[in-house]
Amino acid sequence: MRPWGTEPVGRFDEHVFESEVLRGNPLGDPHERPLWVYLPPGYDEDAERRYPSVYMIQGLTGQLDSWRNRSPFRRNFPELADELFASGDAPPAIVVWVDAWTSYGGSQFLDSPGTGRYHSYLCDEVVPWVDAHYRTLAAPEHRGIAGKSSGGYGAMVTPMLRPDLFGGLATHAGDALFETCYADSFGEAVRTLRDNYDGSFDKFWEDFRSRPAFAKDSDALLLNDWCMAACYSTDEDGTVRLPYDLETSERIPEVWERWLAWDPVRMVPRHADALRGLRAIYIDAGKRDQWFLDLGAEAFRRALAEIGVTDVFFELFDATHMGIEYRYPLSLKYLAERLSP
Amino acid sequence: MRPWGTEPVGRFDEHVFESEVLRGNPLGDPHERPLWVYLPPGYDEDAERRYPSVYMIQGLTGQLDSWRNRSPFRRNFPELADELFASGDAPPAIVVWVDAWTSYGGSQFLDSPGTGRYHSYLCDEVVPWVDAHYRTLAAPEHRGIAGKSSGGYGAMVTPMLRPDLFGGLATHAGDALFETCYADSFGEAVRTLRDNYDGSFDKFWEDFRSRPAFAKDSDALLLNDWCMAACYSTDEDGTVRLPYDLETSERIPEVWERWLAWDPVRMVPRHADALRGLRAIYIDAGKRDQWFLDLGAEAFRRALAEIGVTDVFFELFDATHMGIEYRYPLSLKYLAERLSP
Amino acid sequence: MRPWGTEPVGRFDEHVFESEVLRGNPLGDPHERPLWVYLPPGYDEDAERRYPSVYMIQGLTGQLDSWRNRSPFRRNFPELADELFASGDAPPAIVVWVDAWTSYGGSQFLDSPGTGRYHSYLCDEVVPWVDAHYRTLAAPEHRGIAGKSSGGYGAMVTPMLRPDLFGGLATHAGDALFETCYADSFGEAVRTLRDNYDGSFDKFWEDFRSRPAFAKDSDALLLNDWCMAACYSTDEDGTVRLPYDLETSERIPEVWERWLAWDPVRMVPRHADALRGLRAIYIDAGKRDQWFLDLGAEAFRRALAEIGVTDVFFELFDATHMGIEYRYPLSLKYLAERLSP
Amino acid sequence: MRPWGTEPVGRFDEHVFESEVLRGNPLGDPHERPLWVYLPPGYDEDAERRYPSVYMIQGLTGQLDSWRNRSPFRRNFPELADELFASGDAPPAIVVWVDAWTSYGGSQFLDSPGTGRYHSYLCDEVVPWVDAHYRTLAAPEHRGIAGKSSGGYGAMVTPMLRPDLFGGLATHAGDALFETCYADSFGEAVRTLRDNYDGSFDKFWEDFRSRPAFAKDSDALLLNDWCMAACYSTDEDGTVRLPYDLETSERIPEVWERWLAWDPVRMVPRHADALRGLRAIYIDAGKRDQWFLDLGAEAFRRALAEIGVTDVFFELFDATHMGIEYRYPLSLKYLAERLSP
Repeated sequence: MRPWGTEPVGRFDEHVFESEVLRGNPLGDPHERPLWVYLPPGYDEDAERRYPSVYMIQGLTGQLDSWRNRSPFRRNFPELADELFASGDAPPAIVVWVDAWTSYGGSQFLDSPGTGRYHSYLCDEVVPWVDAHYRTLAAPEHRGIAGKSSGGYGAMVTPMLRPDLFGGLATHAGDALFETCYADSFGEAVRTLRDNYDGSFDKFWEDFRSRPAFAKDSDALLLNDWCMAACYSTDEDGTVRLPYDLETSERIPEVWERWLAWDPVRMVPRHADALRGLRAIYIDAGKRDQWFLDLGAEAFRRALAEIGVTDVFFELFDATHMGIEYRYPLSLKYLAERLSP
Repeated sequence: MRPWGTEPVGRFDEHVFESEVLRGNPLGDPHERPLWVYLPPGYDEDAERRYPSVYMIQGLTGQLDSWRNRSPFRRNFPELADELFASGDAPPAIVVWVDAWTSYGGSQFLDSPGTGRYHSYLCDEVVPWVDAHYRTLAAPEHRGIAGKSSGGYGAMVTPMLRPDLFGGLATHAGDALFETCYADSFGEAVRTLRDNYDGSFDKFWEDFRSRPAFAKDSDALLLNDWCMAACYSTDEDGTVRLPYDLETSERIPEVWERWLAWDPVRMVPRHADALRGLRAIYIDAGKRDQWFLDLGAEAFRRALAEIGVTDVFFELFDATHMGIEYRYPLSLKYLAERLSP
Repeated sequence: MRPWGTEPVGRFDEHVFESEVLRGNPLGDPHERPLWVYLPPGYDEDAERRYPSVYMIQGLTGQLDSWRNRSPFRRNFPELADELFASGDAPPAIVVWVDAWTSYGGSQFLDSPGTGRYHSYLCDEVVPWVDAHYRTLAAPEHRGIAGKSSGGYGAMVTPMLRPDLFGGLATHAGDALFETCYADSFGEAVRTLRDNYDGSFDKFWEDFRSRPAFAKDSDALLLNDWCMAACYSTDEDGTVRLPYDLETSERIPEVWERWLAWDPVRMVPRHADALRGLRAIYIDAGKRDQWFLDLGAEAFRRALAEIGVTDVFFELFDATHMGIEYRYPLSLKYLAERLSP
Repeated sequence: MRPWGTEPVGRFDEHVFESEVLRGNPLGDPHERPLWVYLPPGYDEDAERRYPSVYMIQGLTGQLDSWRNRSPFRRNFPELADELFASGDAPPAIVVWVDAWTSYGGSQFLDSPGTGRYHSYLCDEVVPWVDAHYRTLAAPEHRGIAGKSSGGYGAMVTPMLRPDLFGGLATHAGDALFETCYADSFGEAVRTLRDNYDGSFDKFWEDFRSRPAFAKDSDALLLNDWCMAACYSTDEDGTVRLPYDLETSERIPEVWERWLAWDPVRMVPRHADALRGLRAIYIDAGKRDQWFLDLGAEAFRRALAEIGVTDVFFELFDATHMGIEYRYPLSLKYLAERLSP
């Protein structure tokens, strides 16, 4: 191991993508976004060859450059991906790294009046642009999407919504089974607001933005709840609706139902045909995941089985939610194999 | 402080109560139960005087003799209660200490085919017996009930069910707002079962009973879920129904509804008249309660306010769920004052 | 299991022992102490028979009546001890339950100008009194001492100091290897004092005594350090010396040496002859003990081996420091067997 | 905030430095190392101007490229440093980013037969090379060194050892007061080895290198102890000596003394003249630092005061050990001001 990064064998093209649909988004976040396109070794040698493509999306708070964060004694995922293709261990694929960061942490890769039209940005802008500029196999059976945590969420729901675009998905510890992964901490959120912010999310945001982010343990919790509400239950006029009472944590049924409508586990029956048409489904999670996304993974797997989709990769492994980037090459290889011609 | 207990100024009569309704209970637990009756100083001096009575009930796993547990540097509640009346700080009252322990930890003071008829035992056997053998003021406006945790639960629901018997209640950190106090840990329970007991409660019980109880951190969690199901959602034939899927923690709606029907917060509207008739309602909880029973307390308070009941004592204080027996004299005094003629 | 205590088969005689050496102790604690003497089944039948005796001593903050605390689904140790002898599983022995509580939590069963003369009280007052009033086998080879935590400490050091009295010892998770069991938390103590008490133990005590004891998580830590200093490093004039700087936790070498002189591990070589003469040595601890007393147990075992004492019972088991009273019957049986004629 | 990094206003020159003294180091780590030199805005405009220099060194497990890790909603330190100089808020300085990573995590910036000659590499190779290739003010009164954690350690001890080179230091939560910052966890390390690795560090390393690093909670603990021993107490033949017994955690006095000889707090008196000659000393730490380095900071400050060095910056702030890169600009500004002509 060398104490610094490696030169890739393939090639990372780094673009700034100018989105039309993100222009004027409600949070005032940039409509110009970084976009990386990784081309596997050999791409430049054979000018005719076309490749499957895999879109990598990130978890909450992810910005594109955090893919390159260095964990001690480890390679980061861009390095691992390059190594995977350089070794010939997986058939070559183009990997597209998409940024969907927002000032609330993320977008769940959905269109929402709370954050912006990130689903449209990904599906209607980025995908066509990549197909236009790179030699992809521009058909759903050769296009996949993968991510972890909220990125795993996006990887589950995007192909359900757009089976015309995506024929494969990989979710690592993706948000699912909302009554467990989200609702378990509503009480803690309410208490934190009560004890520190007079019960007000506005006061939380004021505090959060006045000092180093995540300096308080409770920051991640409050940010998560607000961001999810911004994604799942924001009114057309931009009003963010929380699914719980701010004094007691009692569920507010009509808002909570809006959340549940976006739960991948509950979406499966409504999108059964789309899911039955996929060529690759990869599901994993750590058995000690802090948000019980191993149970969410199992629930998603079972929902798939109930609609007859059983040809899936599924594994629960010994890990928490953190530090599991070493799993991503497994899903990338799986997708590359299944989405190759 | 002396390193041993004190002789009470009042008097504790210790009985063994032979219950008819507990005979042949489904768990094979004893139908003979310890019962203590505390008589305040002066009881024996004035043979005509009658007194209000307060029934003390316990939290999950409580056995009657655990009231006398010694915490370091502290008096236990029987000592504190005696001190309260000996000091003249509260009007004299008879305090009745009722045992409703079961092999699953407790009964929630309900009648259930899962545990036994503890509600009937308390209301139809113990209360009349006490009234027959002691000089109580045998009317609901002079009779109260109090407890902590599951005892607080019993103190909330028993007067709703039997306003003809109880005219006052005190709940310290009583079980309420079930989606938060119980459901938050369903995921942990499922995971524990999966990783240690092949997903089987039977295997848990086999293990639990084979070794010192609570030697494993997860014991309390699993015992709680099972016991609550035994109390809230057991079929007539004795089948205990869990409210969640044992592989994913997904709620099973029809069982979960049975639980929610027993949530004090949700019971309030159905028992509005009973509650409006009470002379004393005392509610408190620690702000760091591990089961968020401070939020449950607030939700109960609000539900009462919505039916017009606002003359209540309410306080959230700085504490966890544990070691709060120093609060009980506050509620005992409150009840004694409000239930005295 | 019945939801209340059992009537013993043997007999508990409950005395109030009036100590001369504790009269006027520096903390103003009572010189009258509860003392229980347990007589095994058969004691009253055969008026000639004499029995070995085992002295049970308690951990920090223990008062005599806390022996009877009820843990859910468990018998307490007095019940277990009675059951042991009632079953005939161990040869009959007299068990003496000694109170050495102080206002600082305990005494380590030592004579100290900081707390009082608890070693003398135990050895020169209680033991002779018991021998005078009960049919003990009044020789060291028939007398043992046992305890847990600080009680385990007392059980290790008392026979070293008084081999003329004690011929057997049992230590469950006894304080040992002070650099680990005590020093590991000096930093936390200093920080707590700095952040909450202006760096002053006086302010801690003022706060501690003004409210329910142990309502704050840090209470046990600060009490422990002060109490140990009161036992190990108090000057003749009563000045309690802490072994660390109150601003940095730096060891104060001359005070720390006074502590180390009382570390059972380090005392072994100085008391080799006494230890070689013992008939019974029982050592155990939980492998997850919060104070690493499993390592202290191992260090004590090794120190004994180095002086040639290898005929000892030794076991590390899967448990924390808490809730291990189910282990005590093992040592009681071991002592009863080895100390019987 | 934009979801990607910024273009610096100053300039980062990225070199690969070929070290002679690291060639053939005992761990077989690379002797070629990344080296960054940051040139403040204006450097290229005025070809005559010379600048003070500050050497940035990293904590344990730090590799040079981890400086650029992106924390959510935050700028990383290279960005913050550039912003500091770009804003004119601090006088311009050259910042040199030095890599001293090893296969054990780090080097403590010392020469050791256990890791290699990182002190010599830094002082005798990197510093002269920088002075030769950039327009530094090549005198100790214009040269500083700064870091966090083990980097703070290096920043404390390097100027003590080489006052001819360094005239300023800044330590953020630097390792100090070894009996607290290191020794507090020796027990945990021993227990982990016992329960998982048959008491053998070799088995730990075998396991650690066979799987993703730091996938186990105990990895950081064991790595730390071994690495420190490699730095502080390795024999000339390369034998790494642990300062504690691997079965009990008992200190091994002769090895522990070797560690203490490298404790900055204890080194101060031996290097009093060097320290008195410094122009800038900056000390800070979080008050909730997991290794109690706030107490180490206070102890270092007091040791300085005892030799008459009181013109120091000192602050304890509300934070843990983690996520405190927002503090580094404070010390960089402090050093830049004090080390400027």
